[in-house]
Amino acid sequence: MAELIERQDSGAIARLVLNSPGNYNALSAEMIAALTGELDRIGGDDEVRVVVLAASGKAFCAGHDLRQMQAARGDEDGGAAAFADLFDRCARMMQMIPALPQPVIAEVQGIATAAGCQLVASCDMAVAAEGARFGVNGINIGLFCSTPMVALTRAVPPKAAFEMLTTGEFIDAARARELGLVNRVVAAGSLTETTMGMAATIAAKLPAAVRLGKRAFHDQLRLGLAEAYAASGAAMCQNILLPDTAEGMTAFLEKRPPSWS
Amino acid sequence: MAELIERQDSGAIARLVLNSPGNYNALSAEMIAALTGELDRIGGDDEVRVVVLAASGKAFCAGHDLRQMQAARGDEDGGAAAFADLFDRCARMMQMIPALPQPVIAEVQGIATAAGCQLVASCDMAVAAEGARFGVNGINIGLFCSTPMVALTRAVPPKAAFEMLTTGEFIDAARARELGLVNRVVAAGSLTETTMGMAATIAAKLPAAVRLGKRAFHDQLRLGLAEAYAASGAAMCQNILLPDTAEGMTAFLEKRPPSWS
Amino acid sequence: MAELIERQDSGAIARLVLNSPGNYNALSAEMIAALTGELDRIGGDDEVRVVVLAASGKAFCAGHDLRQMQAARGDEDGGAAAFADLFDRCARMMQMIPALPQPVIAEVQGIATAAGCQLVASCDMAVAAEGARFGVNGINIGLFCSTPMVALTRAVPPKAAFEMLTTGEFIDAARARELGLVNRVVAAGSLTETTMGMAATIAAKLPAAVRLGKRAFHDQLRLGLAEAYAASGAAMCQNILLPDTAEGMTAFLEKRPPSWS
Repeated sequence: MAELIERQDSGAIARLVLNSPGNYNALSAEMIAALTGELDRIGGDDEVRVVVLAASGKAFCAGHDLRQMQAARGDEDGGAAAFADLFDRCARMMQMIPALPQPVIAEVQGIATAAGCQLVASCDMAVAAEGARFGVNGINIGLFCSTPMVALTRAVPPKAAFEMLTTGEFIDAARARELGLVNRVVAAGSLTETTMGMAATIAAKLPAAVRLGKRAFHDQLRLGLAEAYAASGAAMCQNILLPDTAEGMTAFLEKRPPSWS
Repeated sequence: MAELIERQDSGAIARLVLNSPGNYNALSAEMIAALTGELDRIGGDDEVRVVVLAASGKAFCAGHDLRQMQAARGDEDGGAAAFADLFDRCARMMQMIPALPQPVIAEVQGIATAAGCQLVASCDMAVAAEGARFGVNGINIGLFCSTPMVALTRAVPPKAAFEMLTTGEFIDAARARELGLVNRVVAAGSLTETTMGMAATIAAKLPAAVRLGKRAFHDQLRLGLAEAYAASGAAMCQNILLPDTAEGMTAFLEKRPPSWS
Repeated sequence: MAELIERQDSGAIARLVLNSPGNYNALSAEMIAALTGELDRIGGDDEVRVVVLAASGKAFCAGHDLRQMQAARGDEDGGAAAFADLFDRCARMMQMIPALPQPVIAEVQGIATAAGCQLVASCDMAVAAEGARFGVNGINIGLFCSTPMVALTRAVPPKAAFEMLTTGEFIDAARARELGLVNRVVAAGSLTETTMGMAATIAAKLPAAVRLGKRAFHDQLRLGLAEAYAASGAAMCQNILLPDTAEGMTAFLEKRPPSWS
């Protein structure tokens, strides 16, 4: 599967490049397996501090591989088991991203549609090239993007998400930023430089603090206020007792750079 | 009650026009009953694929009918039972909109205040004419818009909602779009054309997919990530096994329009 | 502690001014205690209708007092108990703001960082001077802002919050307004005039309605739709039965100002 995802690491930054431009980096069974595998490896690799998820070719990702899916209709059950399994593997892969210890930044050019848009929404952050467009347009072929919707409605306001899901229309990069789906919009020529720059910024932070923080972030998102403070207060206590954090605070007070282990 | 709401259907689009311009389409007991009745009928009508909720006259809707409410103060209990009943009927009517099988688009000109603003917030989508204004300004007469707040705080960020509720001030259409309360802002002369165009776009999709999708949308909104994926994955499986969806996917791969039943 | 917070009341408006410009109004143990004390007093004072939380000097608030915190590292347990206690007192103080009967408006100039940004996010509303900047940049010294995150992620979309937390970078006032962290951005010279004007607007409303409404607002924010309507419907009924609300509604119908007790 090595060819489906090109891994181009740079120091503590793992750069994953979806590499199936011929089908717009479709999330075929093989691509989902490859991405799951890479995320699994990265999750267990303490050397990796941040992940950039990029794509080769004109599009970021066009969603599921329809041709492959249609083949399952010849199964005895009309594909019921195969589809359930596919959607389950895809949803588990998407949920690996917030669960990963390292922050994940999507780097988006061209179109990100259906499960491709879900992939962007599932990342912790996203940067888009001017000209990028986002859609959850399965409805155009009679398949409402119900699973992409889960990630989308956790990133953008509900009325905007509903319009995208039912009209099948695209939004452009500027609107995506206004709605909260992407963090930054840059010229196409600066896209990789921007995501790698953000990644380098984060990679220079204390890794244990970033990991603690990312976990605490997702743990508290949907809790009530008191429960969220209880959970996050515990994370804060754990963080501040790290020797490197003691050094970071001392260094700040002494107006010098920290010397971390 | 036929005169309170004019129903002007156009193909698979049910167009409901609040038709009491003399009191700015106030949500009187009769108007709530009329709208409840129409929504109930539409909910059971498979021929209707999408609903546009519009209003006649200068305003979209100015909220409850204060004159009618004040009359209840002469009751033995000072109106307690009448008010509780009114707010309950109104809240049930508002909740019928997300529960309706068909998407509902609000078409807003002039002012939408108090329960009128709640009606906009309760619709799945909303389009506003330039010049439209939105307020939850019951506080100006000593009655905090607590029930409109429920729909409003599920559409816009909390600090913006809090300001509207406590200052009683209006926001304009551009700010309403920025906050997520409306999807599009258009010239007054293009308002109906825009909502009916969006409705026609949705009416051209596979109806069963839109229905499944709308239900899945509201079902998963407030769930945790894993629960939301479980619910939406089931909807996705149900959707993809529809024969019309199989045809839609085949048609897409064959680069031809789908031939749906 | 009187000197740490200057209270400058004006009619029914309690104006609290953080008054430790030498350390950018850091939330030292003493400042947290002073603010807790003031909020506690205000919570029991029916004469106060609205609170403005302002700050003296170049900055609004730079977060915790690092020098003071580092001193606790000499404790037998390395500071574990002291830190847990500090974060707990701080989190309880932050949660007093939404729980306070009166609306609280933050008035922000200069920087609001870490727990200082949390303080802005915890207020019901916020106004920023042009040039104000917001950051949760503890990550720069190895301490992820996990507790500020609780308030921040309840005010702005998740991807934007994640970027601030992991990159440690500031956002400016315009972006803070776009994201929902502040309500208004005004020229520095108009800052106090704007917050005091908003406060005066709210102070002129029926106090019992504002109090009922603020409580109902926070009570329903994270409930399901039906539960939220049940809670808010009860608040609405309680509100409308107030004699002053009856008068407010009558006055409106008679096109005259209300005569409230």
